[in-house]
Amino acid sequence: MAGNTIGKVFKLTTFGESHSDFVGGVIDGCPAGLTIDLDFINSEIQRRKPTQKDISTSRSEEDKLIFASGIENNISLGTPIAFFVKNENYNKEDYKDLKELFRPSHADFTYNRKFGINASSGGGRASARETLSRVVGGSIAKLFLKHKANISINAQIEKIGKWDYLTQKEEIEKAFEKINREGDSLGGTITCEINNMPVGLGEPVFDKLSADLAKAMISIPSVKAFEFGDGFKGCMEYGSEQLDNWNEDFSTKTNHSGGIQGGISNGMIIFFRVGFKPIPTLNRDVSYISKDGVIQEIENKGRYDKCVLPRSIVIVESMAALTIADHLLRSYTNKI
Amino acid sequence: MAGNTIGKVFKLTTFGESHSDFVGGVIDGCPAGLTIDLDFINSEIQRRKPTQKDISTSRSEEDKLIFASGIENNISLGTPIAFFVKNENYNKEDYKDLKELFRPSHADFTYNRKFGINASSGGGRASARETLSRVVGGSIAKLFLKHKANISINAQIEKIGKWDYLTQKEEIEKAFEKINREGDSLGGTITCEINNMPVGLGEPVFDKLSADLAKAMISIPSVKAFEFGDGFKGCMEYGSEQLDNWNEDFSTKTNHSGGIQGGISNGMIIFFRVGFKPIPTLNRDVSYISKDGVIQEIENKGRYDKCVLPRSIVIVESMAALTIADHLLRSYTNKI
Amino acid sequence: MAGNTIGKVFKLTTFGESHSDFVGGVIDGCPAGLTIDLDFINSEIQRRKPTQKDISTSRSEEDKLIFASGIENNISLGTPIAFFVKNENYNKEDYKDLKELFRPSHADFTYNRKFGINASSGGGRASARETLSRVVGGSIAKLFLKHKANISINAQIEKIGKWDYLTQKEEIEKAFEKINREGDSLGGTITCEINNMPVGLGEPVFDKLSADLAKAMISIPSVKAFEFGDGFKGCMEYGSEQLDNWNEDFSTKTNHSGGIQGGISNGMIIFFRVGFKPIPTLNRDVSYISKDGVIQEIENKGRYDKCVLPRSIVIVESMAALTIADHLLRSYTNKI
Amino acid sequence: MAGNTIGKVFKLTTFGESHSDFVGGVIDGCPAGLTIDLDFINSEIQRRKPTQKDISTSRSEEDKLIFASGIENNISLGTPIAFFVKNENYNKEDYKDLKELFRPSHADFTYNRKFGINASSGGGRASARETLSRVVGGSIAKLFLKHKANISINAQIEKIGKWDYLTQKEEIEKAFEKINREGDSLGGTITCEINNMPVGLGEPVFDKLSADLAKAMISIPSVKAFEFGDGFKGCMEYGSEQLDNWNEDFSTKTNHSGGIQGGISNGMIIFFRVGFKPIPTLNRDVSYISKDGVIQEIENKGRYDKCVLPRSIVIVESMAALTIADHLLRSYTNKI
Repeated sequence: MAGNTIGKVFKLTTFGESHSDFVGGVIDGCPAGLTIDLDFINSEIQRRKPTQKDISTSRSEEDKLIFASGIENNISLGTPIAFFVKNENYNKEDYKDLKELFRPSHADFTYNRKFGINASSGGGRASARETLSRVVGGSIAKLFLKHKANISINAQIEKIGKWDYLTQKEEIEKAFEKINREGDSLGGTITCEINNMPVGLGEPVFDKLSADLAKAMISIPSVKAFEFGDGFKGCMEYGSEQLDNWNEDFSTKTNHSGGIQGGISNGMIIFFRVGFKPIPTLNRDVSYISKDGVIQEIENKGRYDKCVLPRSIVIVESMAALTIADHLLRSYTNKI
Repeated sequence: MAGNTIGKVFKLTTFGESHSDFVGGVIDGCPAGLTIDLDFINSEIQRRKPTQKDISTSRSEEDKLIFASGIENNISLGTPIAFFVKNENYNKEDYKDLKELFRPSHADFTYNRKFGINASSGGGRASARETLSRVVGGSIAKLFLKHKANISINAQIEKIGKWDYLTQKEEIEKAFEKINREGDSLGGTITCEINNMPVGLGEPVFDKLSADLAKAMISIPSVKAFEFGDGFKGCMEYGSEQLDNWNEDFSTKTNHSGGIQGGISNGMIIFFRVGFKPIPTLNRDVSYISKDGVIQEIENKGRYDKCVLPRSIVIVESMAALTIADHLLRSYTNKI
Repeated sequence: MAGNTIGKVFKLTTFGESHSDFVGGVIDGCPAGLTIDLDFINSEIQRRKPTQKDISTSRSEEDKLIFASGIENNISLGTPIAFFVKNENYNKEDYKDLKELFRPSHADFTYNRKFGINASSGGGRASARETLSRVVGGSIAKLFLKHKANISINAQIEKIGKWDYLTQKEEIEKAFEKINREGDSLGGTITCEINNMPVGLGEPVFDKLSADLAKAMISIPSVKAFEFGDGFKGCMEYGSEQLDNWNEDFSTKTNHSGGIQGGISNGMIIFFRVGFKPIPTLNRDVSYISKDGVIQEIENKGRYDKCVLPRSIVIVESMAALTIADHLLRSYTNKI
Repeated sequence: MAGNTIGKVFKLTTFGESHSDFVGGVIDGCPAGLTIDLDFINSEIQRRKPTQKDISTSRSEEDKLIFASGIENNISLGTPIAFFVKNENYNKEDYKDLKELFRPSHADFTYNRKFGINASSGGGRASARETLSRVVGGSIAKLFLKHKANISINAQIEKIGKWDYLTQKEEIEKAFEKINREGDSLGGTITCEINNMPVGLGEPVFDKLSADLAKAMISIPSVKAFEFGDGFKGCMEYGSEQLDNWNEDFSTKTNHSGGIQGGISNGMIIFFRVGFKPIPTLNRDVSYISKDGVIQEIENKGRYDKCVLPRSIVIVESMAALTIADHLLRSYTNKI
């Protein structure tokens, strides 16, 4: 049973493999009457593109977004909003030799065993390319959240590798020199804040707002870790140190809980952190395994991201926006 | 739109508030023909009970489990397995005075704003009591996994507070003395391993095995953080340090990835870590806020867990079992 | 993948086999704050019971309904409303001899092949007993529809066998004498009207209000046919004869469409018809087949309904109420 | 909450309004490794086109189908299969004048009230054009059913208006002359048989195979009625007349039940009937109502189908194929 849809009311389904003719998606459940600001959507797509030469992909992508349905005169119709982008800029031949080999720490092997077949590019859907559809979906979710409740979502890089992004720029520059020189890669952490949250979003028990944010984040390629509020660090403290005491307007003096109590938003800023592993595509000799179980050293010449953090900021925001939009709509049916 | 069901094929729905007459659940999707070992289920329920006086609840619970349907002669019929437990041992009067007050760092306020109403106990579904149903569901999922693929799931406490559970017993004892004396509480971390995993469980993109595990874990009361494989720590390393190189049998020499590649199990041990916050119910004067916004100090005399870690081990395992059982069944439809 | 839940927002899951210890259900998605009128629910349950000796079951049922959760002081909490009824009045031994035999035109054989196992009663979930849970769910849906939009739902028997229920009472009496004498059974048709419908319920394309009503009705035991508006008869006419012309208040002069256009309610009375087959349990010698394929004549002495129509009126209304309640809640998210 | 997806494992989502730039769909859940016979798919699309001048649309359609993803070298990858067709052949201006008017017995009014907005063509998704995506989805479902279990699905016209399609050709010809002359339209009935059905498809209670077929059929534009087996007619007979007695190979001597018992296939031919209303678009003066409630006579000059039956045969088969494919996959998880 496939799993290419996220959300229960505001739903995004994505399609497209790394090297299929198109990638795209369908948003089903965007309310009618929303103004669809195409400039904003395209600016969000730009944020996902490689801009900083050193720390991102060298593969050029042409992302001409086409909306197929669901919008007329820039207004949502309440019907499915389908969109797609042509995958113009690749050559299936590039990957031909690698089709019979599984890269280490990639999804080639797991896809092969799961489906009994591999797309020509190996990883199929396990592609950075797929995240384009998340950004389109997320940007429309953002427009809805802005319009309806003035909710805003802001992510930023916290760390590249083990270095603080804001205060250790020199160390990070040196680390990039090193990975460029040695064909290595870097991960890091991204934090995200959601402002102007209404109280009451999220469902008790399984569909907690925090649980759905966790799923949305861990579903992003390369993500290995999620925590909200004080996270793992807060788990090491005493209860008395983690208590968020009341102000008389029902806000709290501290926000150790990260804006979510019992799985439901409490009106404070939602805060969470996401960990990205260093990508496993290295520009050096790497040991592949063939379908017959023969291990061989191969020099990797593929184009790739050396650090996905910069272009992942907007992806984190997009997945957060999709989750919050879904729960905002879900909350309409809570009470009589 | 409510969210009291988890799973898409092996589905668990739970019901019951902290002080409703019953708590229970319905498992829909357990295949027919499974031997339901009631002794095992009851032993799992026992694991959820307070056993270590000092570090758990003093509230006594009678958990006489009744199966209402779906099982005959200890064999599953393929029909919904409903079960429930009577809530015998509480007094609604105990909570009466608190009904108009919101505790700090609890779900009373968020439930009130969400539903416009509160159950007599304040938090409604945000109750440790609800996790009993997770354990029953999880124990049946474990029986299915054992029977079908000999998969086993083992969680253990890693840390209480900031202390290592295995090597710092003395420090932990002192910390418990402290919290008993001062009416405080402690959190910590639980790690979990899943052995004998088949390759190929988990779906690309949104329903990654890792993403669904994350959601299942973060849905547990008090959980604030989730990471798999090397987690946040691995995100600080270089790609070359995180590469899991091949053995000729398609296993890997290391397991930085924690048994999941591209959201799909790769046959290695699945490993993840869960962070529990210290519970916010303190045996000391605490500031409540009334529905009118008046803050008042109240002495808390309620019975409560001072540290949920010991009884949460089986809950972590149960949620993992539910997630893996669901994905094992989902995998049946992957290929022709 | 099991299918014991109906509805997407207002959801009912039912459980219980014909001879399990309990039958019951869980309503997940009833908004908080609804007054739960227990007298009304019990009066609906009464309508499902055999009252007319001649045309219904002779099996006595004690339906003491217990609400397990989700309601406090007769107000819904927004949490799952679980309920159950004990199955007191049967003897598993009665069915023992029949366990190895499949009745003709029953679900014994299909259940056996599907699940590889049979409940002691043969048909398992294919039991009139299961419909009790539909009536409880439906009665709460009715309370919601009444409170929220004053929507009312009224079904009635149109035909017993081939005779008009209102004008051919004598013929029907004779037919009942015949089936009592000969151990035979009768089917018929039930029609249903839904009044005070808001405009705009139902979703384009697959989740049309008409399509969901069709599914809900055909899911009732013994139902073989569904039509709305002028149904099959209208399909034989010319388009000019079926046109519903406008009044100036956007109502229509006629209602051939039965209150639904393009799958969406148009504010007129919703009208549909449901066909019930005569039940296949006959009080006469009937040919069973054993699991080994041996056919044998057996005298049927079981207690059974000779005509399910009278007690099915409330079941039709209940399934309609569940469907409309679900779509009413779904409609809250249609537009900005 | 939108409803543009059908199926739970083999899922089709469709998109596109009558006059959007594209119509198309996404199939999520087609197993990997299926040979996708594009010639077959295109031949199915041809069957949906107007071929008999007199009894179908005069609007010419260019249906150049593009597969965007999920297929490589004509083999399904197990990933979402997205497809679309450009809507080339229309002029939004044609409909401009009608945008402020609601046609009688159409979905213009219900869409307007539901969404607070109308697509330029009035009915939006309520368009024959949308059914193209159903046929593409259905043709892939047919390939799966053929490959996996040699299941075949055959629908045929039974009646046009009140006349038997096979034996009353002359009467039907005259009726078509009449509707062409008078700008009127005709409905009728289509029957469908499914051969080589395995035993055991369909779920007890709500997701009965019959219930899901009913929903699938009633979701087709213009459909007003559904019955299976002996349908309404069988509901008028005695139980003894409707009994399907056993053969020793577990087939039955008769098939009054239409191949489904207790919602589960019994291995006999599945038989059902679908009623199509005469379409409400007439080539004559028709009363429209404006958004302000003013009724006015307008001469209708639009291109339209006078009878949708011929092109609906393949749509009925497609929706049946989608339903059976979904339940075939669902059945994989029934038992240990």
